[in-house]
Amino acid sequence: MLRLKRKSIAAITLNLPVAAFLVSVLAAGSGLRPVNAQARKAAESPAARQVRIVLDRQVEAWNRRDLEAFMSGYWHSEKLSFYSNGTKTAGWQGALERYRQRYQGEGREMGALDFADLQIEVIGPRSVFVRGRFHLKLTSGDASGLFTLIFRKFADGWKIVHDHTGSGS
Amino acid sequence: MLRLKRKSIAAITLNLPVAAFLVSVLAAGSGLRPVNAQARKAAESPAARQVRIVLDRQVEAWNRRDLEAFMSGYWHSEKLSFYSNGTKTAGWQGALERYRQRYQGEGREMGALDFADLQIEVIGPRSVFVRGRFHLKLTSGDASGLFTLIFRKFADGWKIVHDHTGSGS
Repeated sequence: MLRLKRKSIAAITLNLPVAAFLVSVLAAGSGLRPVNAQARKAAESPAARQVRIVLDRQVEAWNRRDLEAFMSGYWHSEKLSFYSNGTKTAGWQGALERYRQRYQGEGREMGALDFADLQIEVIGPRSVFVRGRFHLKLTSGDASGLFTLIFRKFADGWKIVHDHTGSGS
Repeated sequence: MLRLKRKSIAAITLNLPVAAFLVSVLAAGSGLRPVNAQARKAAESPAARQVRIVLDRQVEAWNRRDLEAFMSGYWHSEKLSFYSNGTKTAGWQGALERYRQRYQGEGREMGALDFADLQIEVIGPRSVFVRGRFHLKLTSGDASGLFTLIFRKFADGWKIVHDHTGSGS
């Protein structure tokens, strides 16, 4: 049981997240060309799949008006950064308060959220970069815009550490 | 000369960018606490330093009205993505034309560009994530805003593969 061969030792020197990252890079370059969304999801690396699940859960949480569950997709830290057009909000608490004011304040509504054109790219052993478009169906007139997210892998899963969202189209 | 020892073989299995990335992660976690900007620059990983040089050159190019040199900081590809508030521009050529229209068109000016609050984070063997604020001094009234950049390392150096810029404050 304890007879480690040379190969095993070399494998151990590559720590697990790095190895997973290399596997995903190799997978990305393997020439697979999925023909539909279902196939694309199936060919996704584990990291991209996990990030997609976080995003799906955020949308579900938003649409049942559960802002706390929506916020669990974000890094619970003062270092979370949130850029909305020209405005910077620092920290998880600040981001939550911003959402509360804008979508749960007097006369406000959360509406129905949907993400489109998602591009999920694994760019480091613990880093995923996401581009997409949001659409928010509101009785007062729909809102939509583009977002860039940086996810980092923590012990309790993938979390957004930076959100840059721009609205206007 | 050709007698490779076991250790060397293990080192070779870790390809160079991954090794450089691990070194930068170890350096980031080493507890160094630079006390001023000069010291912080000196403690930067090679990747972060190279990205900072690209950004410095972009600012210099902009301020001498050399849009082509400014654009050399971007990935020369149709896959470059450029988000400005709610608008998506695809490709290097599209981004160049957008800059020409907005800053070199009839009655337009390029002004004096400056970047502030730069946070340069190495997040993968070939990936760097940058946050910052731009300020553009114009005779018609200054403009400023926040940006998020993703840099990727190519054979000819670090290039922006995604730019999300929001103005308004």
